[in-house]
Amino acid sequence: MASDGDKSDDAIVQNRPISTILLIIAMQTEALPLVNKFQLTEDLDSVFPKGVPWIRYHGVYKDLNINLIWPGKDLALGVDSVGTVSAALVTYASIQALKPDLIINAGTAGGFKAKGAGISDVFLASECAFHDRRIPIPVFDMYGVGLRQAFSTPNLVKELNPKVGKLSTGDSLDMSTQDEASITANEASIKDMEGAAVAYVADLLKVPVIFVKAVTDIVDGEKPTAEEFLQNLAAVSAALDQAITQVLDFINGKCLSEL
Amino acid sequence: MASDGDKSDDAIVQNRPISTILLIIAMQTEALPLVNKFQLTEDLDSVFPKGVPWIRYHGVYKDLNINLIWPGKDLALGVDSVGTVSAALVTYASIQALKPDLIINAGTAGGFKAKGAGISDVFLASECAFHDRRIPIPVFDMYGVGLRQAFSTPNLVKELNPKVGKLSTGDSLDMSTQDEASITANEASIKDMEGAAVAYVADLLKVPVIFVKAVTDIVDGEKPTAEEFLQNLAAVSAALDQAITQVLDFINGKCLSEL
Repeated sequence: MASDGDKSDDAIVQNRPISTILLIIAMQTEALPLVNKFQLTEDLDSVFPKGVPWIRYHGVYKDLNINLIWPGKDLALGVDSVGTVSAALVTYASIQALKPDLIINAGTAGGFKAKGAGISDVFLASECAFHDRRIPIPVFDMYGVGLRQAFSTPNLVKELNPKVGKLSTGDSLDMSTQDEASITANEASIKDMEGAAVAYVADLLKVPVIFVKAVTDIVDGEKPTAEEFLQNLAAVSAALDQAITQVLDFINGKCLSEL
Repeated sequence: MASDGDKSDDAIVQNRPISTILLIIAMQTEALPLVNKFQLTEDLDSVFPKGVPWIRYHGVYKDLNINLIWPGKDLALGVDSVGTVSAALVTYASIQALKPDLIINAGTAGGFKAKGAGISDVFLASECAFHDRRIPIPVFDMYGVGLRQAFSTPNLVKELNPKVGKLSTGDSLDMSTQDEASITANEASIKDMEGAAVAYVADLLKVPVIFVKAVTDIVDGEKPTAEEFLQNLAAVSAALDQAITQVLDFINGKCLSEL
């Protein structure tokens, strides 16, 4: 009975226009251009518990209710709350509070030129996995990798023609030898610090999720990652901004099954 | 006003006997001896959202309401949901649902013989930090390390005389060269896969937390970690069981300020 009910709920969601969008964006520099472009306003009464730095910006764009969640600045250190733990928490709390139809995890990423990535390229991730959770015990090893598919959007890919590739997630900005081996095993074109954690929570709570990532630095290139990342962050955030607008324009008025 | 209110709330909590305990335990093998010992019963109506594998066992021991939360088996793979993402999520959801007075993160850990750790030793962690979140940008580097103090329990240490040391957390069971350098920088005696994530969430939501960790394997020893870990897991869980009982016996009837 419960299972049939679930199926019919799913069918209803798939066949009515997408209404509530949850945009998860880790850094303020990535988030603010979108907040301005879509004239989103910051919540005064937070939907989140007292004390957390998480910020919700919301507004209406065409027929979509947009909720942009930024995990905010670390309360002690004042830097963006990047990484998997923070991303998992805000995704969980936002799903509970907002019941979105679709999650878009947007942000910057490192790209691999060996996989065809260049600076400012915008990728749609086909799947996500972790590259820094090595648990060399049978089955636990697969749990550590945590491979999850993004929601399938063949029409969006046909229409917008983004680069499509696999995303690998870890909590370090740099890449150790072990990370590199896992990223190669994950066949990743791009590398970020949140995607696979957002995918884990979205899967737990059965909300479809897509990943739109713009390349700030070439991991297998000449320049040091941190330097190249900081140099390109603002400019690449503009490319991301444009891509997200195209994605939202495409989504507007469509059902999940039409993506 | 809000700030004054907070202070007086804090004072009240500090000066009334501890009532609600949240035990966060990542593995079933670690959790079940405690479930049996304290005759805890599994929730039929979960306090958690539909679909998540998280399990709450609860019961009364002396004057304490015990809530033992185990993140459960991964729904696709059937192994314990270990690691920082899962630990952060259950800690967050449990604090929201249960409003505990004190969190105890209990479990097994790797120990460093160079820091005096031996198999079956039970450690109380003085502080936690991450060893696999390398972000080489000023201030972000400190965010990555995420150092947090455990709640100070001088009387408990005096009475029970556990080993006391620093805990370093990462999502891998093994230890890479980079992990080792960070663990050394963290001055850690023990290494686990959840502690610093539990500490992060407890700090966000202002709930005191302590860490009770029993050593299953010697990281700087001869034997491969995974093998030694699996060999000792059940026996060491019994030592952990005994230590948790002693800790709960000590806590019973006391205020936070008396720990």
